[in-house]
Amino acid sequence: MSSIGFVGLGIMGKPMALNLIRGGHKLFLYSRSGVPQELTAAGGSACDSAKAVAQQADIVIIMVPDTPDVEKVLFAANGIAEGLSKGKLVIDMSSISPLATKDYARCVNELGCDYLDAPVSGGEVGAKNAALTIMVGGPQGAFDRAKPIFELMGKNITLVGGNGDGQTCKVANQIIVALNIEAAAEALLFAAKAGADPAKVRQALMGGFAASRVLEVHGERMIKRTFDPGFRIELHQKDLALALSGARSLGVSLPNTATAQELFNACVAHGGAKWDHSAMVRALEQLANHEVGKSVD
Amino acid sequence: MSSIGFVGLGIMGKPMALNLIRGGHKLFLYSRSGVPQELTAAGGSACDSAKAVAQQADIVIIMVPDTPDVEKVLFAANGIAEGLSKGKLVIDMSSISPLATKDYARCVNELGCDYLDAPVSGGEVGAKNAALTIMVGGPQGAFDRAKPIFELMGKNITLVGGNGDGQTCKVANQIIVALNIEAAAEALLFAAKAGADPAKVRQALMGGFAASRVLEVHGERMIKRTFDPGFRIELHQKDLALALSGARSLGVSLPNTATAQELFNACVAHGGAKWDHSAMVRALEQLANHEVGKSVD
Repeated sequence: MSSIGFVGLGIMGKPMALNLIRGGHKLFLYSRSGVPQELTAAGGSACDSAKAVAQQADIVIIMVPDTPDVEKVLFAANGIAEGLSKGKLVIDMSSISPLATKDYARCVNELGCDYLDAPVSGGEVGAKNAALTIMVGGPQGAFDRAKPIFELMGKNITLVGGNGDGQTCKVANQIIVALNIEAAAEALLFAAKAGADPAKVRQALMGGFAASRVLEVHGERMIKRTFDPGFRIELHQKDLALALSGARSLGVSLPNTATAQELFNACVAHGGAKWDHSAMVRALEQLANHEVGKSVD
Repeated sequence: MSSIGFVGLGIMGKPMALNLIRGGHKLFLYSRSGVPQELTAAGGSACDSAKAVAQQADIVIIMVPDTPDVEKVLFAANGIAEGLSKGKLVIDMSSISPLATKDYARCVNELGCDYLDAPVSGGEVGAKNAALTIMVGGPQGAFDRAKPIFELMGKNITLVGGNGDGQTCKVANQIIVALNIEAAAEALLFAAKAGADPAKVRQALMGGFAASRVLEVHGERMIKRTFDPGFRIELHQKDLALALSGARSLGVSLPNTATAQELFNACVAHGGAKWDHSAMVRALEQLANHEVGKSVD
């Protein structure tokens, strides 16, 4: 069993670390807001800095909110880089900028260590049930080394390409999920305002080319008006911001991603930062002065 | 077995009528461009007008390209309405305006006949294999009467609601398919221009919330560059035009449907009216000066 470090023990990191402890690994833990007692009770060792984690573990996993947070835990004073020595492996499972990731990987490689970007989807439920989808970028050898660890946290585990490609894949995932939500919202709202029953429309569409996981899960939420997260709009906004700033840097036009972000912005203006992302439909409902699920007579 | 009339024997109507003849029904046939010999050889009777079809059949099916075509075969001189008598059933399987459909149904009802709108998805292949998805609007009794006939042509057969709701459901279907294509195009193009392999990205995404029939089928077409139809852009443009004009009448804002239509328009400007609708990606590729499937170094 490897000795594993885990930096960032929030809503996602805590259950992921717990699954690694249960899988028989020795864990060294650090989190800005302190190490949860549940993890030390299960056998994990609390450390007083990210540097200390990296000194004691062979493999260091990062799970923090955003690009600047990853930069900080890696390269600030008492950060991971100060504790690394040759042959160790850094795995960033946060969802952050693909472009910044390539820089971070290069800096870590210069210390004689491998780097994997390995963002996940599946949310808190997927983290607890060890059912995350894990999209990995980095060298094959490092992926092979990390795979048994990934298998304690997730199910669909793919080496997409080199460093940065895991994060690129995650951004692509968030683009599609947002735009499929927007598509379901336009279609169900059109149907509702035309006087049809959106629940029956959704049912009929699930059998054909319109079928998607989003129409199944988020479409049902729009009809049943269950907008408790799930996945919060403010988090999806962060991901679409990565898509849109990446698109600007790369020279790609993402017109519908831009519109979806504006609709999320409108939800936030109505107090919806913590609504489930399927509540994007509410922004279109405002414009149409009509709700999915209320039929016209 | 019922005697069935069939008006409109093009790419879709011909194989649908053939499946009804093979199912043991007596068919009376009319098409503006003449009745295909294959159908008379199989036992169908050619008529010299839509009126003659309606005089001889109990149930009259319409399968023509667009709203004005349905209006013409129903209500022009020598049209179906002139041949109807009390107790007959008219089934429009064309994809046309939900709002116009409600008017047509009312006019047919005034002649003592039932009306069903029953548009399909699944294309020529679905028509040949009797595997169409059929979305039906109209009275339950008429639906029950038509169901054995629908089952000779399709598989997923849903009574969505009253007259017009079948067409509304079809429009909703075409909105989602177009926007899921656009979503896959934005995501795969972003990934390709960021230097990742779009085929691997698509594979990784199929396991999670981004999964859809469109990512599976049309996403693969974008990567393999197979843009032979399939479903032609000019037909999907017609469907989105129904969505956008319906949205204007109803007071619904469909921002991403509008953008998708503009991207189809851009494809047509480059000679793409008959490309498969997955070729919508080409409009975004033009903007990005990059193709999905070509990686950046």
